[in-house]
Amino acid sequence: MKISPKPPRGMRDILPEETEIRDYVIARILETYRAYGFRHIETPALENIGLLAGAEGGENEKLIFKVLKRGEKLELGAEAGLDALVDLGLRFDLTVPLARYYANNRANLPRVFKSIQLGSVWRAERPQRGRFRQFTQCDIDTIGVANELCEIELLAATAEALANIGFQDFVIRINDRRILTDMVAACGFAEDSFDSVFITLDKLDKVGAEGVAKELTANGQPGPAVDQLMAVLAALPERGDFDTIRAALPAGDAPETYAAVANVMAAIEAQSAGRYRIQFDPTLVRGMGYYTGQIFEIAYKDYPFSIAGGGRYDRMIGRFTGEEVPACGFSIGFERVVTILLDEAQGAVDGPKRLALIVDPADPMAEAMAAAGRLREQGYAASLLPRQRRLGKQIAALGDDGYAFFAVFRPGEAEQTVEAVAADPA
Amino acid sequence: MKISPKPPRGMRDILPEETEIRDYVIARILETYRAYGFRHIETPALENIGLLAGAEGGENEKLIFKVLKRGEKLELGAEAGLDALVDLGLRFDLTVPLARYYANNRANLPRVFKSIQLGSVWRAERPQRGRFRQFTQCDIDTIGVANELCEIELLAATAEALANIGFQDFVIRINDRRILTDMVAACGFAEDSFDSVFITLDKLDKVGAEGVAKELTANGQPGPAVDQLMAVLAALPERGDFDTIRAALPAGDAPETYAAVANVMAAIEAQSAGRYRIQFDPTLVRGMGYYTGQIFEIAYKDYPFSIAGGGRYDRMIGRFTGEEVPACGFSIGFERVVTILLDEAQGAVDGPKRLALIVDPADPMAEAMAAAGRLREQGYAASLLPRQRRLGKQIAALGDDGYAFFAVFRPGEAEQTVEAVAADPA
Repeated sequence: MKISPKPPRGMRDILPEETEIRDYVIARILETYRAYGFRHIETPALENIGLLAGAEGGENEKLIFKVLKRGEKLELGAEAGLDALVDLGLRFDLTVPLARYYANNRANLPRVFKSIQLGSVWRAERPQRGRFRQFTQCDIDTIGVANELCEIELLAATAEALANIGFQDFVIRINDRRILTDMVAACGFAEDSFDSVFITLDKLDKVGAEGVAKELTANGQPGPAVDQLMAVLAALPERGDFDTIRAALPAGDAPETYAAVANVMAAIEAQSAGRYRIQFDPTLVRGMGYYTGQIFEIAYKDYPFSIAGGGRYDRMIGRFTGEEVPACGFSIGFERVVTILLDEAQGAVDGPKRLALIVDPADPMAEAMAAAGRLREQGYAASLLPRQRRLGKQIAALGDDGYAFFAVFRPGEAEQTVEAVAADPA
Repeated sequence: MKISPKPPRGMRDILPEETEIRDYVIARILETYRAYGFRHIETPALENIGLLAGAEGGENEKLIFKVLKRGEKLELGAEAGLDALVDLGLRFDLTVPLARYYANNRANLPRVFKSIQLGSVWRAERPQRGRFRQFTQCDIDTIGVANELCEIELLAATAEALANIGFQDFVIRINDRRILTDMVAACGFAEDSFDSVFITLDKLDKVGAEGVAKELTANGQPGPAVDQLMAVLAALPERGDFDTIRAALPAGDAPETYAAVANVMAAIEAQSAGRYRIQFDPTLVRGMGYYTGQIFEIAYKDYPFSIAGGGRYDRMIGRFTGEEVPACGFSIGFERVVTILLDEAQGAVDGPKRLALIVDPADPMAEAMAAAGRLREQGYAASLLPRQRRLGKQIAALGDDGYAFFAVFRPGEAEQTVEAVAADPA
């Protein structure tokens, strides 16, 4: 019986060429983050469904892949409902599992815990070009530091990782959730509508100021507040240093919030040495409801998505530990980084020198293996291939199969070094 | 509200120290397999449930984590049954997905395709000490070679990977499914009972020959066949070269099957140069129903589990492509390897030199970051830690938190190199 060889809807197989680029990106990220003192950890792909469902993960909670209970006789009656059938779900991000992990293991973790996570997450989104239902995330988080020393280190490490992968001229956008709050409060929106206003404001890049005003009005926001916000947006310089932009904003209650952003920007500008920029953007929102302080995103060229994003979430860990623990994280959009590398053919990763050692299966195998071993010592990635009846045809096809070199094994020449010959390119 | 911080039943969090060992093992395996010409690929964690359920995966098919359909209104009526609610499952091994992958992508793959897979698999087994419901597998497979050149390369690469991780004196056990068949046929078992006899024989290591005889009899196997098998087992030398053991076996129909095992053994013995051994074991079974030719396992010291296993499965890919394609694979028991490294404290991985740079948050951050950068250039993994009120107490606790070195940042010394001091050990 023939079975369909397609992967599930919205998921995909990754070919060797792309996997090599992915491995290259992972290696650069890991070595950079390790140099900054972060430590790699792992959590399971599955979490208890109750944990995922109440996680302030915004839209993502609706997209959970849910796993059926096992073993017991399941109650199929309609009154019990679907939820009675489910006990686990696939994680939709790495932040919620990290908070659980920290609470579960803090007795064995350093006081200031700096983690690296690298793993798949799953979201049952409508499949679309370039968006998949399983994708890799790569996060660093610092748990236990309440001041901006933590933000500076996270931003510097992430920027350095991107630079080590090969990115230049990217722009870090920075804001603080409390600056957002100051801004909409000063415009006269009601406090219980702030979150709804943020969700609309988050679309500014896509729909423009006019689109934002339209949606706010449609949502029943008061006209004077909408007008006021439009005036603030219009007055904001599109670029400029912190002080210029700060001057265009309404006064806020907590000057230290603004000073902290300026402090982070100064440190990161020094660190960048001109390789990338940091820009204060008081309209930056970020989707997740759990952010409490500074938030950041990294934009690259004209790509319509950010390549990294993160922020401070000081109240999430307390849901597990019972007491608040400050935390801040930054996530690299791994799939987007790989997409750009493939796009720009920056993806020319120095792979191994692949060589085919053509061997007659009747030849003495120990000798052939020894010859292959000597080729490996010379730096070739050597594969034994069984000799085909038409050797010339076989050799001509090697380039197509990804071999840059070949050699034909001849028994009795064990003591000699097999000569590697460049294969015809594909 | 406080939520339980435990991971799901039978799954676990991995602490930084173990993750470092895991990363070390992965790096050694990948670099070895790449040198042997294998290429890393990825498949999704989820597969269509129909693919997993008919895969000859033996017991594993009963252990699938099943995923609920999404989006549509699900039919909860009892007559539709549970299966109507499920469309996906988490993979229970990497071989079944590989067969699908090859069929799906063969137009873009080399004629002889040599893959590396490294990923999690999930089995809803009863949790027990050291056995978890999510674990990592690490497989290499060669698709498209029908002769034992393929087995030799797989065995050599796997043995070399284990040696590069630090294993010595392990024993490769080798057999062929057709030798097993010859043996039980010669004893007089009926052909339609071979698979059942194999399942019992697979328990030989655990229950001994007597236990095997007892179970065969209980299963209604004819007494003379059982007696005959016992006689064969009793006559088998526990060790010995291929010819000695071959002489103790009933004659088989296909001498080339035996010659191929001898050929593989000779090549691997030469390759090992005494670092490990290969042993013919005609009682080796391996659980999966899909094996068709040579099978192998690697044993280490007295550990009651194998650390690697694999074999030839020439008929699986045809389920997808419609035509038979020869294939052979070898899987390293990644979790077992890590367990042994932790056990034997061979796991003393050369980690980075972790250093804490203690910084007052009021200090100029750009200077502090520059000082940390210079420490990184000297090879330290430098973390910025905010200075605590009681500096002496903070420094005394650094060893506990995994720092081997520290330095205290003083502003204005930006041009000087910060001196790293060894921290007190934990």
